Amino acid sequence: MIRIGIDVGGTGIKVGAINEKLEIIATGSIPTQIDIPFGDQIQRIAECVTSVIQSGAHPISLDEIASVGVGIPGIADRDGNIIKCTNMGWNHVPFRQEFTKYLDKPVFIDNDANVAALAESVSGSSAGTSSSVFITLGTGIGSGIILNGRIWNGHHGIGGELGHTIMELDGVPCTCGNRGCLERYCSATALIRMARETVSQHPETAILEMANGQPEKINARIVFDAAKEGDPIAEKLVRRYVSYLSQAIANVVNFLDPEIILLGGGVSKAGDYLLNAVREEFPRYVLFNDQPLPTVELAVLGADAGIIGAAMLS
Amino acid sequence: MIRIGIDVGGTGIKVGAINEKLEIIATGSIPTQIDIPFGDQIQRIAECVTSVIQSGAHPISLDEIASVGVGIPGIADRDGNIIKCTNMGWNHVPFRQEFTKYLDKPVFIDNDANVAALAESVSGSSAGTSSSVFITLGTGIGSGIILNGRIWNGHHGIGGELGHTIMELDGVPCTCGNRGCLERYCSATALIRMARETVSQHPETAILEMANGQPEKINARIVFDAAKEGDPIAEKLVRRYVSYLSQAIANVVNFLDPEIILLGGGVSKAGDYLLNAVREEFPRYVLFNDQPLPTVELAVLGADAGIIGAAMLS
Repeated sequence: MIRIGIDVGGTGIKVGAINEKLEIIATGSIPTQIDIPFGDQIQRIAECVTSVIQSGAHPISLDEIASVGVGIPGIADRDGNIIKCTNMGWNHVPFRQEFTKYLDKPVFIDNDANVAALAESVSGSSAGTSSSVFITLGTGIGSGIILNGRIWNGHHGIGGELGHTIMELDGVPCTCGNRGCLERYCSATALIRMARETVSQHPETAILEMANGQPEKINARIVFDAAKEGDPIAEKLVRRYVSYLSQAIANVVNFLDPEIILLGGGVSKAGDYLLNAVREEFPRYVLFNDQPLPTVELAVLGADAGIIGAAMLS
Repeated sequence: MIRIGIDVGGTGIKVGAINEKLEIIATGSIPTQIDIPFGDQIQRIAECVTSVIQSGAHPISLDEIASVGVGIPGIADRDGNIIKCTNMGWNHVPFRQEFTKYLDKPVFIDNDANVAALAESVSGSSAGTSSSVFITLGTGIGSGIILNGRIWNGHHGIGGELGHTIMELDGVPCTCGNRGCLERYCSATALIRMARETVSQHPETAILEMANGQPEKINARIVFDAAKEGDPIAEKLVRRYVSYLSQAIANVVNFLDPEIILLGGGVSKAGDYLLNAVREEFPRYVLFNDQPLPTVELAVLGADAGIIGAAMLS
């Protein structure tokens, strides 16, 4: 049987067909359009799915399709309704009901970070583990929890928001309206903010040079590259970031203690340099740190995780 | 069938026999003795169990006993070994192996907060729910997670330590060696520390009067009683404590989103006064706070939770 995975993002919507070996056998995408009625949005997505299943060397028949899964930057209920998906302008919309007008298959919807966590747990870094937490270090912080092989998104579907747990009382203001959210210390955005603050005081740093003297061009990669090259200001920044991320990881360990914790998203492209630093530091914040601890690994599926994980929803 | 529950504490060890209606039908206790060999400690506990099962109006036969469960202020593995239990001086000791020399029944061991969470989920405030988090607000902060009706203590058995998740970077030093642990803001000890700091600056507060002018006699109850009577200093202290506890609860909601969150331990004796304040405040720290949220309730089993929950281990 074939499963369809749909990865809904703020700029594009990707569709993929997955075979039983979890291989992507056909893909397609359309740009996201939010200024049209909901029904038209769904029709566009359904048309993209139809085009994808007909596009391969061996077109897929409708009978072969077992299910359709959708990952969204928002939350959905178990009945296929999207509760909230701000980027798409969706607020309590009946996705499944609308979509099945075009393709009458079981439709499952979940948050994109949960979906990526599921993908890694079936065919990525956490394959073969029974519990994992996937943390994406991007513009914000997403997180997905897998327990006993299934997504745990909470009793009310609002869990997995590690990025908005508070790690500093009265801390840095967050876009959510609160203060001190973990996202404000561990996201790429947070690292860039810290870097810009630092270069204003230390214009001699290689960070500024690598950003062509323009603080607004600083990104996470530049900070890590400068640190790897031995720039002391960048090294200090990375140490500070690693300290925050290690405390965030330790919070997950102290509370949930999964078998494995995965790091994904833009900042994780710093690779082993980041991974080794975090592996060395997080245990000091774990209460029972003389016991076996969760492994920390990098996610491996990258952009495919959204399609694969969505297709695996059930 | 009858199940035996053993509640191991730093000052006393309580034993109870539970029938199929989850009623305690016989109990007994012995003072904790830690200055004797491990084998002798277990022999004393086994003798207490023997005495309890013979003590009722209808003595319990060995054939009637299904299992023995043990709650400890520490961590154990799935094979009945206690990994660490500092109060008892136990470090990697084979509890099950030693205990079954006296009573050859299945023996299960878990952390005392987990055990209390389980008890509440079978016959207390969270009965009938599928997921819950129990937070004890005592000298420290204990927590237990119940998912799909079973204790979740993590893949390595070191989870459920909400008290040592970090809620303030570089915050108040904790007994564990780290800084900013939630326990330092939400335990009875934390409230008392804040109260003592406050009375030194505001000797006019009713808190000091109710403690007979002796700051060292301040306890959580006095602070809440003074606040209930309208003492402005005490009210301000309680508001600060409620703010911390609400943020701790919101962290649990944002990350795990259980069906229900229970508050137990000494501070929870402040009752509805505390409960209503927390219920009003915690949603503002929840990301999706326009959705249905976990219920917050007081635990009801009190001291019996240790015996009942231990007996329910399997």
